[in-house]
Amino acid sequence: MPVRFDLISQGEELLAGQAVDTNAPWIAAKLQGVGLRPGRVTVVGDELAAIRELIAESAERAALVVCTGGLGPTSDDLTREAAAAAFGVPLVENEAALAQIAERYRSRNREMPFKNRVQALLPEGAELLENVNGTAPGFAVDTGRCLLFFFPGVPFEMKPMVERFVLERARARFGLHPRTNVILRCVGLAESVAAERMDGFERPGVVVGYRASFPEVQVKLHVDHGIDPASLITEAAARLGADHVFGVDSGSLAEVVGGLLRARGESVSTAESCTAGRIAAELTVSAGSSEYFVGGAVVYANEEKVRQCGVDPAVIAAYGAVSEPVARALAEGIRARTGSTWSLAVTGVAGPGGGSAEKPVGTVYFACAGPRGTVHRVMRFPYDRLRNLSATVATALDLLRTQLLAST
Amino acid sequence: MPVRFDLISQGEELLAGQAVDTNAPWIAAKLQGVGLRPGRVTVVGDELAAIRELIAESAERAALVVCTGGLGPTSDDLTREAAAAAFGVPLVENEAALAQIAERYRSRNREMPFKNRVQALLPEGAELLENVNGTAPGFAVDTGRCLLFFFPGVPFEMKPMVERFVLERARARFGLHPRTNVILRCVGLAESVAAERMDGFERPGVVVGYRASFPEVQVKLHVDHGIDPASLITEAAARLGADHVFGVDSGSLAEVVGGLLRARGESVSTAESCTAGRIAAELTVSAGSSEYFVGGAVVYANEEKVRQCGVDPAVIAAYGAVSEPVARALAEGIRARTGSTWSLAVTGVAGPGGGSAEKPVGTVYFACAGPRGTVHRVMRFPYDRLRNLSATVATALDLLRTQLLAST
Repeated sequence: MPVRFDLISQGEELLAGQAVDTNAPWIAAKLQGVGLRPGRVTVVGDELAAIRELIAESAERAALVVCTGGLGPTSDDLTREAAAAAFGVPLVENEAALAQIAERYRSRNREMPFKNRVQALLPEGAELLENVNGTAPGFAVDTGRCLLFFFPGVPFEMKPMVERFVLERARARFGLHPRTNVILRCVGLAESVAAERMDGFERPGVVVGYRASFPEVQVKLHVDHGIDPASLITEAAARLGADHVFGVDSGSLAEVVGGLLRARGESVSTAESCTAGRIAAELTVSAGSSEYFVGGAVVYANEEKVRQCGVDPAVIAAYGAVSEPVARALAEGIRARTGSTWSLAVTGVAGPGGGSAEKPVGTVYFACAGPRGTVHRVMRFPYDRLRNLSATVATALDLLRTQLLAST
Repeated sequence: MPVRFDLISQGEELLAGQAVDTNAPWIAAKLQGVGLRPGRVTVVGDELAAIRELIAESAERAALVVCTGGLGPTSDDLTREAAAAAFGVPLVENEAALAQIAERYRSRNREMPFKNRVQALLPEGAELLENVNGTAPGFAVDTGRCLLFFFPGVPFEMKPMVERFVLERARARFGLHPRTNVILRCVGLAESVAAERMDGFERPGVVVGYRASFPEVQVKLHVDHGIDPASLITEAAARLGADHVFGVDSGSLAEVVGGLLRARGESVSTAESCTAGRIAAELTVSAGSSEYFVGGAVVYANEEKVRQCGVDPAVIAAYGAVSEPVARALAEGIRARTGSTWSLAVTGVAGPGGGSAEKPVGTVYFACAGPRGTVHRVMRFPYDRLRNLSATVATALDLLRTQLLAST
């Protein structure tokens, strides 16, 4: 009999369709990872009776419940009160919670608004769970039959709390053997193609999952306790195509590229037309990126391509701004001017306007300049504007990654 | 007493966190638009008993239920059977449904696989609802107390069915008057501060909601039919501070800024150190941004600040790269070189490293150069690296917005 968990996502904006709930999928994946099975995921709005009933029902139905949202300081934050009512206990001010909230304000040199004091109220007998990233403390209630966790709805606050308070306790309480979960991170591969290539890979104790996080596709191997994942990883990577797998349980593509550059003591610069800074932004997501990223040019207007990267106006006139010669000239120009080891350049038609018969929306020219010369690639993406731009960023970074690997 | 709807999203991949449910938010927004109030949204997996129980419960709780998913031809598509069981009726083959499925295959010049015949089974007494974009017919069941709709989970198939079959029937059955929903979009204001300022604003027929979408805070007014929202908007904006409200039911901050620039025929360029292209990226989210955005410099390394924007190395040596004089020099340098009407520059310490006692992590200097000179601002953000960068982008755009408004 599998151990079931229920998730509750509280928030009128989720219920009303003004926001998409990403918390529940994230928590569900984590809990599945430690061996629990999902029962129901329910979204409920800002109504005391509705939240109270749902908490009470879930505590009867599931062995573990994680409820997110409704712990803020405003009058529509009702989860504390609803939980207390569901368990038939009063709300009481928790001194440690109050101290933590006050400390959070102190550390930001701000005065705690009186309103936030309400966040220190917990159902009597609940266990305080510290929120190190915000002012809303979490709490846990153990009914004997069911273990319930209550966390703020802000992902940045909730996620570390789930990792710190829920996973190990769930394993211990339900005697679960953790599965090993391996993530093969891929680019340049549609989810359906990845699934085709992995067809028939499953075997007793090995479950394959997929997650499309555009433009990346993650292939997940859930491996039962006692099976060594190493040869499975090799086999799966061979099926998917080694050139598509940029990392195994790794950071993002930009982090992988950054790690390669850092290890070699090399640097990169960027010249971006259609992506307008998105490649540079992605390269600087991680702290310490100044070790390998020097800067770059955002060359939206043609005059800027000429001014900042020395592209010959005659080349633009002859081939168009969206062309291989311009991509090459941008890459070589920015590399020469910044003195970086490598450079990446893109010029393309993100859409929805600006396409032509010869260069339809989604056409992007890439160039990567380096110590051994300049390589070029052209893609025609079939997406909308923002997805075309995301795919462009990933393709550019992957072009640099393959150049780095080829030149070791 | 508001008329309540419940939504059911069926699918193991949604429950397991392998996919995010976007159907329910879309349907919820549509139903709210015609004046229904949301009760619960529940995700349930591929288990007959679980789906049956949820359908039966929802039919008791809500006046209208929309259930998506589980109408495909495979063995894990259980919604038809679960619905029949929930209503205590048998599944019967619906001739019109079978004809529609066969027609769908014929129109694609394909033969209907035998296993698709199961899609023509409907609970006895259910009304067939045609699916013009796929092979899974929908159906409706009216229990008297509750009207239930069952649609396929593929958004492209489901959406036109909701628009064709649900909305007008709901209006007619429940005699609904739609509410007006107004969103005041704010920057530079914490959610708790916004809530404090709006304290006591609610009145009969007017409900206030909040949504934090960092670094933006949205204040929502839900106004009943018959009340004019205009004076409410003015009053709410005055409470929140007109300088914080960048739009009412508007696009993003960057879109508002872009709209102001476009209307004036003016342009902007950027010089970004810590944000490394994020301001330029945000300014180019919308198609047509080349009308007002010319390009910019990503000046991560100090040498790039000198080379690309002509910052005097002696100024960097004297004041540090993160300083007011450098922010001003970056803004003035990029404006002079690109010839844009306006420019935005930022230099700061995003963290987690790089802080000092005098300039701790989160310190950012902003400058906006324009026809009447250069204005400057300094902020000290208390967040982590990526949130400090998001707050920096919003603050920079808002600095330009206020300059544009002040110079009309």
